[in-house]
Amino acid sequence: MENFELIGNIEQAQNFLETIKSGKSLFAFVISYTETCEIPGITFAGADKNSIQFTPPADAEYLHYGYCKTIDKIPMTPDGKPTPGLLTKIALESSSIPHLTINAGSKISPQLPFIETGLPFGKNISIEDAMTDSEVSQAVDFGRILGRSLASLTDCLVIGESIPGGTTTALAVLRALGFDAKVSSSIPENPIELKNQIVESALKRIDSDHPYSIVAKVGDPMIPFVAGMLSSASGVSKVMLAGGTQMAAVLAFASKIGFNEENTIIGTTSYITNDENANFKELVQKIANIPIISVDPNLKNSRHSGLRAFSEGFAKEGVGAGGCIISSMLKTGNDSEKFLKMVEEEYRRVFT
Amino acid sequence: MENFELIGNIEQAQNFLETIKSGKSLFAFVISYTETCEIPGITFAGADKNSIQFTPPADAEYLHYGYCKTIDKIPMTPDGKPTPGLLTKIALESSSIPHLTINAGSKISPQLPFIETGLPFGKNISIEDAMTDSEVSQAVDFGRILGRSLASLTDCLVIGESIPGGTTTALAVLRALGFDAKVSSSIPENPIELKNQIVESALKRIDSDHPYSIVAKVGDPMIPFVAGMLSSASGVSKVMLAGGTQMAAVLAFASKIGFNEENTIIGTTSYITNDENANFKELVQKIANIPIISVDPNLKNSRHSGLRAFSEGFAKEGVGAGGCIISSMLKTGNDSEKFLKMVEEEYRRVFT
Repeated sequence: MENFELIGNIEQAQNFLETIKSGKSLFAFVISYTETCEIPGITFAGADKNSIQFTPPADAEYLHYGYCKTIDKIPMTPDGKPTPGLLTKIALESSSIPHLTINAGSKISPQLPFIETGLPFGKNISIEDAMTDSEVSQAVDFGRILGRSLASLTDCLVIGESIPGGTTTALAVLRALGFDAKVSSSIPENPIELKNQIVESALKRIDSDHPYSIVAKVGDPMIPFVAGMLSSASGVSKVMLAGGTQMAAVLAFASKIGFNEENTIIGTTSYITNDENANFKELVQKIANIPIISVDPNLKNSRHSGLRAFSEGFAKEGVGAGGCIISSMLKTGNDSEKFLKMVEEEYRRVFT
Repeated sequence: MENFELIGNIEQAQNFLETIKSGKSLFAFVISYTETCEIPGITFAGADKNSIQFTPPADAEYLHYGYCKTIDKIPMTPDGKPTPGLLTKIALESSSIPHLTINAGSKISPQLPFIETGLPFGKNISIEDAMTDSEVSQAVDFGRILGRSLASLTDCLVIGESIPGGTTTALAVLRALGFDAKVSSSIPENPIELKNQIVESALKRIDSDHPYSIVAKVGDPMIPFVAGMLSSASGVSKVMLAGGTQMAAVLAFASKIGFNEENTIIGTTSYITNDENANFKELVQKIANIPIISVDPNLKNSRHSGLRAFSEGFAKEGVGAGGCIISSMLKTGNDSEKFLKMVEEEYRRVFT
């Protein structure tokens, strides 16, 4: 496709695109929570501090119903920029790709049928451990169980996430595992100083190089759960990790517990791979020998400033948007112009 | 297969068997609860009154892990006859048919990743309404949502249930909808008098012929939820309702809300279709023009009395056993002798 960029192992990436095109895809949307997001200034994934906890279930409800049940409006920034879930929704609907919501530590349950894991939400890593070692172990085990089941139902399992504050925990896990990560954010004036402070204080608590202990101390429930999914699912079907920095942290942890690289890819937006403040492409290549497929959703050409904002650094990725757009364009043959038109229609529907 | 009986529309039944043989199947295991089961003498689905509520989640855990987490032993009658889930487990494992557990009103959640609906359990219909009308409506809606998702992932959706006391609520719903149903039970000395008393007192509360109102007053959450699943799923894939009397009640309610008969079948054991005290075959034919496929699991030839008991009227069906055995034999080509051998091995593993 004209607006895909293939990075890394090109042959494996092309092979992967062929599978999506000819086979069945299933989008697994993992919602979670870390209290780290409650630190003022760390995220804009929600209109205000109290509403942030509703963002993951509201994203799930919006994907499903086209409106939310736990809150009045769809998730947006204080000044009205919409959730990247808007891109995901149009991608899935236009291609009839089915999806399931998985609760892996969200504080609030969505009001629709969803897969429950019973995992607790993550604590604020700036002041305490995110989880216990045994909770990490449980997250990996349950991820493995579910990954195997879902992968057996499809040819390509696309996994996305919604965890406000998740780039900060991802940064901490990546650094603790030895990767010099710079991190993307849902805010263009990325609060790098604040994130670095939080990560530094969290890293001080680390007293073991065991990966379970590291994730327990400075991670969040999404990371071990999705890594568990990847580890079993990649033995059965293709797996696309749909996201940016968070999925790099998943990949880093998964490389410690084992997964099948040949069946794995990262799918994301060009807003992540072209981010000058981050080093996403180099980071992924250092972690594992898997390709990245990046799509330009063409939002810079939108007549709506709320959509152009994505291309200017707001909410560059999330809710598996990039991976879902890639899967959708391959299935439907739609180009980015057609996709933008549908997204703009949905934007107007939601905001009028 | 030598030990299948096809009843009703034979051509449709054969067509269905062909789909299972050549396509993918997915077993959806719906767990639920009605306080009606707490009436003394109504069910033996559990070792004693307090443990009955653990039977549905324990069945789910046993299917998955081979042991239970919420209770010490696998579900069994007070004198040690095992859950029909033992047959289901061997059927699914030997054929690698994937399964998902769905909580539609169980009092206790299983300790594994499962699909949550948030539906409340049903009240004791001998003394009060099972649910509100709006809870029935919610159950149908959530069933429809999930049925559509799951059906899009497979060629044949096999739906089974575990709801102790469910034959009594099924009997009440069938009679209220105008069907002269005689009901099977998990006990050979079927407590017909007791069940009839409960049903009679429940039917007195009915003051509307609206099907939602009827199920709210004398049903349970499983019936409207599975009927909702059937109504959407049968538009997308084949659907096998795996069970006895409960699935007849699902069918009766589903015929009021609409479903695709051409894609629907009932799969069960010969212990149900040959039960002299019930009238299952005639009942199903009166409700809808769909075939029944019945399998003889050959347990009468077992050397273990705990397994022969199934053929003598204990736990004749449940946990989707019949439908899963049918699907499994078609996939693997195993005959009933081979199946019995595997079941006996599992029986010895569980009880020693």
